[in-house]
Amino acid sequence: MSGILYGVGVGPGDSELITLKALKLIKSAEIIAYPKLEGSESFARTIIAGFIEFPKKEIVIDIPMSEQRLPAQKAYDIAAERISTYLEADKNVVVLCEGDPFFYGSFMYLHSRLSGKYETEVIPGVSSLTTCAAVANRPLAARNEVLAILPGPLSEEELTRRLSDTNSAAIMKVGRHLKKIKRVINDLGLTRFSYYVERASLKEQKVLTLAEAPEIAPYFSMILVTKGEDPWL
Amino acid sequence: MSGILYGVGVGPGDSELITLKALKLIKSAEIIAYPKLEGSESFARTIIAGFIEFPKKEIVIDIPMSEQRLPAQKAYDIAAERISTYLEADKNVVVLCEGDPFFYGSFMYLHSRLSGKYETEVIPGVSSLTTCAAVANRPLAARNEVLAILPGPLSEEELTRRLSDTNSAAIMKVGRHLKKIKRVINDLGLTRFSYYVERASLKEQKVLTLAEAPEIAPYFSMILVTKGEDPWL
Repeated sequence: MSGILYGVGVGPGDSELITLKALKLIKSAEIIAYPKLEGSESFARTIIAGFIEFPKKEIVIDIPMSEQRLPAQKAYDIAAERISTYLEADKNVVVLCEGDPFFYGSFMYLHSRLSGKYETEVIPGVSSLTTCAAVANRPLAARNEVLAILPGPLSEEELTRRLSDTNSAAIMKVGRHLKKIKRVINDLGLTRFSYYVERASLKEQKVLTLAEAPEIAPYFSMILVTKGEDPWL
Repeated sequence: MSGILYGVGVGPGDSELITLKALKLIKSAEIIAYPKLEGSESFARTIIAGFIEFPKKEIVIDIPMSEQRLPAQKAYDIAAERISTYLEADKNVVVLCEGDPFFYGSFMYLHSRLSGKYETEVIPGVSSLTTCAAVANRPLAARNEVLAILPGPLSEEELTRRLSDTNSAAIMKVGRHLKKIKRVINDLGLTRFSYYVERASLKEQKVLTLAEAPEIAPYFSMILVTKGEDPWL
């Protein structure tokens, strides 16, 4: 017998966009774990900090600042090891995940290491995808429309090909790829259908047309391209 | 001056997957509106029924059972008219939306009719997309993977083309298209990567491999195809 690994989505940033289910699990948890990027606070922990009484036992997953995969993978190796010690001792561990755990979330790195060995339950959360659409006041897709979720690091050619073949798209992980993405969208004549959203649902949130977007974007930014048909018809 | 139109995502079905924000808005609302399919209870209303004290003023959007667009569009014309009467009288109206309002949600039909004239705010909800992934215990996408959201009614040719050109996919609105979708996935050799999820997060939920899936599916069902790379690496 061993503990349960919970991957809990805490939503996009606004603390009120957490679900009742996530909140209940987090409040009753003895042990919480969360990623923390080198040099910053843990975003996931700040989302829930107002709701719970610390100290609980906290497992900090220290993610080094690096474009390389190996250092982050190493951090997840260490975290998985620490978490499994508790699971082996029949303790549940609640892993906090920004947005939704299975939608481009870092929880997958723990999931791939631990879900084969331990009972795992994932609590879905409000994703950045639908939050960006909500704050931009732009419907993502309806009826028989195709929606493409595209990571910003894709090549110019691939972004061009995929954006020409979809009703709407969300481009994730914009960051330093913004300039390239703007060029692709502009060359396709889609700029007037495109919106830039930064830190959706937080106080510092920015919603701009793509034409107004800055040259450099933070990691937590997204571009929506919604050229969908008129849902009135 | 007029009232505010709120499109509020109430999540996929489990009442605990509602957000604090949605709950607060619904509890304090004087007037709620929701779609109700002919012959059944309103799914959106049942999700929140345990939380609030009725009667409030309720606007029922009666959706006729029909494959045609026109009767449903007519129902939204009537609902928009009724809602605008309250908005004009400076009353806020909270529209309940299953899942997320902007992710293949029927709220768009009201949004397209009313958001140009009245202040509109959308509260994102937990979508069926990430809920199906959570209950199937299958990560949707990570890193630079492409995720395609495809409606089941697409033609066999289009489904084939799009499924061959993505890391993972979610096929929505499966319903009576299940047989066709199974054939496409099978012909592409993707059956072993594919999962069938019905009524995710509800007590009646079913999670099956695609090979085990029934021949006929309800409307609230989804197929996940997740052939993504191993996130361990």
